[in-house]
Amino acid sequence: MDFAQAGDLAMLQSEKGKKIIFRLEAGRQYQTHKGMISHQELIGTRWGSTVETHLGTPFHFLPPTLRDLLQTIRRRSQIIFPKDIGYILLRLSIGPGAKVFEAGAGSGALTTAFAWMVGDSGKVISYERREDMLEVARSNIENLGLQNRVTFAHRDLADGISESGFESAFLDLPNPEIYLSHVREALTFGGTLGVILPTTNQVSKLLGAMEDTGFGAVEVAEIMLRFYKPVPARLRPRDRMVAHTGYLSFARRVA
Amino acid sequence: MDFAQAGDLAMLQSEKGKKIIFRLEAGRQYQTHKGMISHQELIGTRWGSTVETHLGTPFHFLPPTLRDLLQTIRRRSQIIFPKDIGYILLRLSIGPGAKVFEAGAGSGALTTAFAWMVGDSGKVISYERREDMLEVARSNIENLGLQNRVTFAHRDLADGISESGFESAFLDLPNPEIYLSHVREALTFGGTLGVILPTTNQVSKLLGAMEDTGFGAVEVAEIMLRFYKPVPARLRPRDRMVAHTGYLSFARRVA
Amino acid sequence: MDFAQAGDLAMLQSEKGKKIIFRLEAGRQYQTHKGMISHQELIGTRWGSTVETHLGTPFHFLPPTLRDLLQTIRRRSQIIFPKDIGYILLRLSIGPGAKVFEAGAGSGALTTAFAWMVGDSGKVISYERREDMLEVARSNIENLGLQNRVTFAHRDLADGISESGFESAFLDLPNPEIYLSHVREALTFGGTLGVILPTTNQVSKLLGAMEDTGFGAVEVAEIMLRFYKPVPARLRPRDRMVAHTGYLSFARRVA
Amino acid sequence: MDFAQAGDLAMLQSEKGKKIIFRLEAGRQYQTHKGMISHQELIGTRWGSTVETHLGTPFHFLPPTLRDLLQTIRRRSQIIFPKDIGYILLRLSIGPGAKVFEAGAGSGALTTAFAWMVGDSGKVISYERREDMLEVARSNIENLGLQNRVTFAHRDLADGISESGFESAFLDLPNPEIYLSHVREALTFGGTLGVILPTTNQVSKLLGAMEDTGFGAVEVAEIMLRFYKPVPARLRPRDRMVAHTGYLSFARRVA
Repeated sequence: MDFAQAGDLAMLQSEKGKKIIFRLEAGRQYQTHKGMISHQELIGTRWGSTVETHLGTPFHFLPPTLRDLLQTIRRRSQIIFPKDIGYILLRLSIGPGAKVFEAGAGSGALTTAFAWMVGDSGKVISYERREDMLEVARSNIENLGLQNRVTFAHRDLADGISESGFESAFLDLPNPEIYLSHVREALTFGGTLGVILPTTNQVSKLLGAMEDTGFGAVEVAEIMLRFYKPVPARLRPRDRMVAHTGYLSFARRVA
Repeated sequence: MDFAQAGDLAMLQSEKGKKIIFRLEAGRQYQTHKGMISHQELIGTRWGSTVETHLGTPFHFLPPTLRDLLQTIRRRSQIIFPKDIGYILLRLSIGPGAKVFEAGAGSGALTTAFAWMVGDSGKVISYERREDMLEVARSNIENLGLQNRVTFAHRDLADGISESGFESAFLDLPNPEIYLSHVREALTFGGTLGVILPTTNQVSKLLGAMEDTGFGAVEVAEIMLRFYKPVPARLRPRDRMVAHTGYLSFARRVA
Repeated sequence: MDFAQAGDLAMLQSEKGKKIIFRLEAGRQYQTHKGMISHQELIGTRWGSTVETHLGTPFHFLPPTLRDLLQTIRRRSQIIFPKDIGYILLRLSIGPGAKVFEAGAGSGALTTAFAWMVGDSGKVISYERREDMLEVARSNIENLGLQNRVTFAHRDLADGISESGFESAFLDLPNPEIYLSHVREALTFGGTLGVILPTTNQVSKLLGAMEDTGFGAVEVAEIMLRFYKPVPARLRPRDRMVAHTGYLSFARRVA
Repeated sequence: MDFAQAGDLAMLQSEKGKKIIFRLEAGRQYQTHKGMISHQELIGTRWGSTVETHLGTPFHFLPPTLRDLLQTIRRRSQIIFPKDIGYILLRLSIGPGAKVFEAGAGSGALTTAFAWMVGDSGKVISYERREDMLEVARSNIENLGLQNRVTFAHRDLADGISESGFESAFLDLPNPEIYLSHVREALTFGGTLGVILPTTNQVSKLLGAMEDTGFGAVEVAEIMLRFYKPVPARLRPRDRMVAHTGYLSFARRVA
């Protein structure tokens, strides 16, 4: 466990924090923008070591965390950020054995976090109407070996949800308000719905529809994450930050 | 699953968002500040219903989510907030099967989230040197039936960590910098350490010690959560918010 | 200048930061919630001294700054906060000699800052349709002796603006979008309009109307102010903060 | 006043918000990155008009506001941002007739705002020990014709302050704590000191020194400004923002 083996996911992290993630396979090599490094050299190396490309650029050699995997996921669309995903997990009570519905899959970042947390006894049902996007999400999930925990469907939410009994559901699509009655039927009584939306106008529309469709205990929030320069004698926030990803809305299915 | 049963955890949520959580037991009753409600009446009630106290005050009747449980945990100390816990889970890759170390347990909020996520195949080892605090944490974990996933120890981190091989560890105590070499030994190579600290001075000290003790890939961040009034035609942030809980520092064990 | 004189504005600031402002008049006394203090005792006292009530509670004895005056202004309505006022001054180029229009006056906090900055050679024209509010604003301005710089009018903006040639104007009222053509006529070409609004829905309406009415170079912003506990060895933000006062919108009169 | 004249300061603002400021002089022309525009063409043009370069790129033609001037000031160093300057003005009670001390001048952004606000009856005394910086600040002030309101000195604060009787002072330099006794002597009793510092370590040092040097009523704050995309039907914050400029500390000279 302390030494990297063929087949492991490995991460190279530069001094500036740039991250590269790949699966170790004997005979392959990775081309960074700062030089090349062979997988063979990495296999058997102790995690936490500093390794160098053939040009002498140093990288931390580390097993990727879930956050790292989410950050570097292959994407064809804006993904949901780790700061939001962490809070979503708690709000939707995702954990081992949970059964959760999501639409759309997008590039699969949230799908990945859900699949990670539900374990082998849980299940993620994920709808996506764009086939190209679905392929990206599916390939991201397969790269992590989580495909047994996810059922993807190439399906438009407008056509309804063929399963039901979900204790939680999440929507990441432009007009969630028009699908609320479908989602309501798929949720258990008291089940939790989460939605992410970029604009205030969309949130207003959603809130209006929630009131009309039998959702209650509504909450809207936004999360801001600010990084600091980790220098002991000159501690201060970084110069710039992400100002906005999306507004998170949550509600419960009520009578 | 749609109807509450004896033995279930149940939540009453007022219109203003106040939450009360208890386990349903035939023959008991709950005294809110707005009147009384009998468990007997709630058992068999459909989740998501609106129920009333004997004084006619309405409450949403809901199964609590993990966030609700963390928010309302019995506490003897400042607890770590859900906004921070969610991010910690991703940074430490907590999920089914994970084995994680924490000190101190405090009131057990983070312990609860860890225990929830690691599932029956995972393990949380939790040190706390104050016996009164340990009892609070233990009782919170037992109330949720998660005791098989947690091993508590009434132990000062200064005496070292008797287990090792942890892929992740979290410290919530005043002087984490003096324990870093103990924690380092308990982590796998490349393992991840997280720390929460309220003041900038403590973060500076920690960062200095991390550099000297073989921790790298250091990151410091803070998370701000702002709630909105969920009124469709008058969407706006609430008037006041929590301005600060703590700075989150993360690092990896490096060579 | 170093010693307080009869007729001066004086401030008592408690250790916790509570502020009381009054004008020194021989023969009067001030009743704090922590005991009484006579003006006579304060007249002739050096600014910056620590003074005590008859119960022994200490206060800093200070000349109030503009921020202090704005914070403690007598109010009948939500006032605009110093964090917002400071930015408004720069955005509207308020300074000595400026001529500025505002509606409504509200309790007169922004009016006070405008009057302070335009000096004796400038002018503030302030409309307010509620007579009770107008009296509060007027009395606040008179208390500071700034009445020569302000012309108040008990007038509804719907009836138009009787002056023109303003290089800047500010609106703090519920439906600014319906008055935009009046305001446009009162502004010079290229003049600047500022508006504060609490909800996102109002901002959307305003932005739509601005596009239709000949306003351009539009900017929307919000300002967050976070205070720290000023303890050298335990520096950290205060626990809670104001999460929202209003959205600031600015635009220029364009062709 | 509605039409630009030779000698006026003029601003070209692009659709994306880029700003160019210059003084109109017959016979000159301005070379933007999107084409050329002759001053002659602009002189006599109505403010608020849309003008085009010879390549057809449109710009708003506007008189610059104080904020615009501060944003585009020629700089040789990090400048203080408008969001901070606005609040500083209120905290230091800067207005017509005020006499204020600052060190160092830096590129002169704060000097400009101070000079703007104190009017012809006020005075800004500004120290700067780097001659190259002093020249930048001086030239920025002269470009705006504010030189009669500012006295620059090429002087190190370590050599003391030759004037006194200031009701307010501001420090923007790396080790303000070592100059506090000089500044205290230059302030009136009860006078206000403001300081901007980028790191938490510097703030801790400053706070400790303030306690020891006869400063009280201390306040530390930070200001965050978030811009929104001003689109009526898709209102949302911009993607990125400035995360940090500096911590603002304020204190009063006490006995």
